[in-house]
Amino acid sequence: MSNLPKYVQIKEVGPRDGLQNEKSWIETVDKIAWINMLSESGVKEIEYSSFVNPKWIPALADARIVGKQIKRNPNVSYSALVPNLKGLDFALEVGIDRASVFMSASETHNLNNINKSIAETYPILKQVIEEAKQAGKLVTGYVSTVFDCPHEGKIAPSEVLRVCEKLLEFGVDDISLGDTIGSAVPSQVEQLLEGVLRHYQKEKIIMHFHDTRGMAIANIMTAMQYGINRFDSSIGGLGGCPYAQGAAGNVATNDVLYLLHGLGIHTGIDEQKIQEASLYIQEKLGKALPSRSLAYIKSAI
Amino acid sequence: MSNLPKYVQIKEVGPRDGLQNEKSWIETVDKIAWINMLSESGVKEIEYSSFVNPKWIPALADARIVGKQIKRNPNVSYSALVPNLKGLDFALEVGIDRASVFMSASETHNLNNINKSIAETYPILKQVIEEAKQAGKLVTGYVSTVFDCPHEGKIAPSEVLRVCEKLLEFGVDDISLGDTIGSAVPSQVEQLLEGVLRHYQKEKIIMHFHDTRGMAIANIMTAMQYGINRFDSSIGGLGGCPYAQGAAGNVATNDVLYLLHGLGIHTGIDEQKIQEASLYIQEKLGKALPSRSLAYIKSAI
Repeated sequence: MSNLPKYVQIKEVGPRDGLQNEKSWIETVDKIAWINMLSESGVKEIEYSSFVNPKWIPALADARIVGKQIKRNPNVSYSALVPNLKGLDFALEVGIDRASVFMSASETHNLNNINKSIAETYPILKQVIEEAKQAGKLVTGYVSTVFDCPHEGKIAPSEVLRVCEKLLEFGVDDISLGDTIGSAVPSQVEQLLEGVLRHYQKEKIIMHFHDTRGMAIANIMTAMQYGINRFDSSIGGLGGCPYAQGAAGNVATNDVLYLLHGLGIHTGIDEQKIQEASLYIQEKLGKALPSRSLAYIKSAI
Repeated sequence: MSNLPKYVQIKEVGPRDGLQNEKSWIETVDKIAWINMLSESGVKEIEYSSFVNPKWIPALADARIVGKQIKRNPNVSYSALVPNLKGLDFALEVGIDRASVFMSASETHNLNNINKSIAETYPILKQVIEEAKQAGKLVTGYVSTVFDCPHEGKIAPSEVLRVCEKLLEFGVDDISLGDTIGSAVPSQVEQLLEGVLRHYQKEKIIMHFHDTRGMAIANIMTAMQYGINRFDSSIGGLGGCPYAQGAAGNVATNDVLYLLHGLGIHTGIDEQKIQEASLYIQEKLGKALPSRSLAYIKSAI
């Protein structure tokens, strides 16, 4: 395991990808207190909300208030999801260091999720990326369903590369490749990264795993063996699966930290503070979060 | 991933290691019906119960009736846990293909678990192994706490090797190395297997992971990269952690099968039948089992 990275950067996506898949409404004041806890955990990147139309994601309807009222830590880069120019304008007004745009490698998933074809999505994202860059912001391009699509099945790495190519051409700084339905096994990660890293530097690639079938930690191990050292994760494993009520969502930051710190990989994140922030949001949600190490530590206390 | 095994043999330990850590009593008739379902799933090895004094494991107090009344599939090898000659005699009377003896690589865990020092345990196991071999049975030696001990912390590979050496000298056919508290990360698996495989053929080694912190699937991946192709797992992830109520126990057979079949590794096991047997025992226990892919499939139906 001598080829593993010495440092891994975690982007905490719980306040965005986590909450957007939870049915419960978390009070704005509680969200703010919780994001403030995350800001003091040592994590370097936090995606604090989404400026998507609240009709689509009611759980994040308070993005502007959250963005205005969280206490910004100068050592943390704050991002938010923006679907279009209107969303970007809100995000810029409220304050972001980084804009996250998103689309799918699967035509059908893109249609279902964004209500547009891939070809129709490109010009919109091009505008958003250009305006965000002009405003001096970093931009991440999320590409979802990079392994499997709930509608189309297996997605070929060439389909993923096609979308990455366009996003990079439009000016994104990096790409987050999403196992949106948490279905990949390590051989799929290998196959995709063999293709992706033939074209792009590993520094441009973030992996975004969901733990729906319990494969995420093994997939992260595999990605690290390819030199990938940036991962998205969600505190406590917050956020379910929109296709299966009760199933696990994003890989839990807690479990990722257990892995990384156990391997001697530096993250700068205080596990204890992550546990505390997990218990805080777990109590507000009123249900046990799926993280294994959270369940262990909580019950062992 | 060209170095992965083509075939992996799973030993289903749910009826033993799973149930022994569950607080609920499962009716004998239900256990039998359930083990019969497992016998028809394509799994080649089932540990059906434990002949430990029922005072210590009340959940398995009906081992003799279970052993007598399950319908034996000639394609399945049936094993049971035996702590001493008395337990072995019961097991032989009832019927086993394989006896499983057990001890710990950690002196303190051995004392806590067996109430004897490691040195005091050896002559007892020597007798059991010899009598089982004389009766024409296979014998597996479980070595627990091979990575970390809840009392002593890190266990050196040399401590594990010391116990393996003795068990093999006494005549066990193979050794199951147990991450009893589910604490290992892949670098620990690597370190242990580097040592173990310098001395023993990989065919003699079975890995037994618990998923307490969500590392088990990644640890199995690592072990397979060392050529290990025998794993213990528990249907649905049945069986908790005696040190932390509510935490996950044995790695779930369901999740292991999702990994293996996804990697194109043959097991001979029908995932659908494993799901059905999981739902059966989940209903009897009256609580959700921790397997991620079980939760996914159940909720997606």
